[in-house]
Amino acid sequence: MEKLQLVSSNKSFGGYQKVYSHESSELKCKMNFSIYLPPQAEGDVKLPVIFYLSGLTCTEQNFITKSGFQRYAAEHGIIVVGPDTSPRGVKVPGDDESWDFGVSAGFYVDATKDPWSTNYRMGSYVNSELYELIQTAFSNVVDPDKIGIMGHSMGGHGALVSTLRNPGLYKSVSAFAPICNPIQGPWGQKALSGYLGEDKSKWADWDATELVKKYNGPPLTLLLDQGAGDKFYIEKQLLPENLVEACRSVGVPVILNLREDYDHSYYHISTFIGEHFDFHAKILKS
Amino acid sequence: MEKLQLVSSNKSFGGYQKVYSHESSELKCKMNFSIYLPPQAEGDVKLPVIFYLSGLTCTEQNFITKSGFQRYAAEHGIIVVGPDTSPRGVKVPGDDESWDFGVSAGFYVDATKDPWSTNYRMGSYVNSELYELIQTAFSNVVDPDKIGIMGHSMGGHGALVSTLRNPGLYKSVSAFAPICNPIQGPWGQKALSGYLGEDKSKWADWDATELVKKYNGPPLTLLLDQGAGDKFYIEKQLLPENLVEACRSVGVPVILNLREDYDHSYYHISTFIGEHFDFHAKILKS
Repeated sequence: MEKLQLVSSNKSFGGYQKVYSHESSELKCKMNFSIYLPPQAEGDVKLPVIFYLSGLTCTEQNFITKSGFQRYAAEHGIIVVGPDTSPRGVKVPGDDESWDFGVSAGFYVDATKDPWSTNYRMGSYVNSELYELIQTAFSNVVDPDKIGIMGHSMGGHGALVSTLRNPGLYKSVSAFAPICNPIQGPWGQKALSGYLGEDKSKWADWDATELVKKYNGPPLTLLLDQGAGDKFYIEKQLLPENLVEACRSVGVPVILNLREDYDHSYYHISTFIGEHFDFHAKILKS
Repeated sequence: MEKLQLVSSNKSFGGYQKVYSHESSELKCKMNFSIYLPPQAEGDVKLPVIFYLSGLTCTEQNFITKSGFQRYAAEHGIIVVGPDTSPRGVKVPGDDESWDFGVSAGFYVDATKDPWSTNYRMGSYVNSELYELIQTAFSNVVDPDKIGIMGHSMGGHGALVSTLRNPGLYKSVSAFAPICNPIQGPWGQKALSGYLGEDKSKWADWDATELVKKYNGPPLTLLLDQGAGDKFYIEKQLLPENLVEACRSVGVPVILNLREDYDHSYYHISTFIGEHFDFHAKILKS
């Protein structure tokens, strides 16, 4: 644990909600991440882990203060890890000019375009560096064969593409209001052109709807949760129906729960995150 | 409802978390309050109400975004109302010089000292103006005989003194980390001298430990929840043992749950607020 600095620790539902910082080699800056250690982490049994990827404008704080997930993580005995949403403090020109690109909008991709390619490597950060760091630093409590992932909005996109690009890395996946087909929506087009350049053939490598058509890994069920009153859904930023259609075309099981009148906020997430924990627990603890 | 302006509405656990603003006659300014209408509010039955009073530095937002109470309110069918913590935008000289006095630190008292006495009337605002406004504006769903109150820290003090000063107004009361004996602690001494002046005989009228010794209303059980790792508890700002001793001296039932290693944050509240809803529901729905 010598690489990690403890930022905060709060007892919650019998376990501890902690935040650590560390120097990231992928992102070349200091990063915070959260980790919830449920009460079962005091015992001798190794526990499943769920990674949670947050949406635009978030830090590692939004999810741990607003979703109420700790109750369900404590009930199921699951460790939950939440990274930040972009590199911090690296001052790339233009990184703070808009809320949907640059700082707090890393989109969980590995940028290839200058000047973003040096630091904006959130894909490798989450799926390689942090994934391995958690297993090393918390090796006494983590079961490396039982790792799942979920996320919200941009982070829902991140959870889906992380799973589909890395078959077997995550045993279970779910998403709240994910950006399902970023090459077809304004947020995704801005991010993918900005981080990857104008060659659209490269964009498909970071688009869940495109990736699922080529998926050839272990059996997987995608659980999607979408508020029907979510203005970004109505504005066609999220496009879950495109992902459902792609899944059906290739026989990948998918569940889309459309929730009447729920919006894009944490009120949607907190209402249904218990169901998502049930879904992950059933897979990870089987 | 013509006096109320809807600020926001979010579906949550089948009901709606709303925020309204209104012009307060007691405080002489525009105030926000939150109201959660559980799914049962769509039916024909009138529902109990719990008022929740927040702590220092809070607005009406902290509780509704961080505590996760909506799950329990929806399970029990209870309406929950959360006022702000002080007048807003009235610009009393010195009102923003410290975090524990003035703006967001109204202490739920009626100030008698200039220049605070004009606006800083949070006691009458909560227990008279807002109490009546909720019954009038939501008369179709509120059961006026089933009203309880809870709060955190400064708001725990507010819940206790509101109940003890107004016998019968609230049928049930509980508090997280309340300031139980403000005349004996630094926060309370600063607030009470600032709002009421230096005559300490007046302070006892707003101190739960003093008030309970003279309580002569309907039978009441006080439920107190205190994190043993709370630094403000350790620093003797809160003094729950003084209130417990006073209760026992006069035979008022009191429960003090001391929670090992929990702190002063919403992580403590969110962990145990389900128990508090059970406590209130048992009384209000009997």
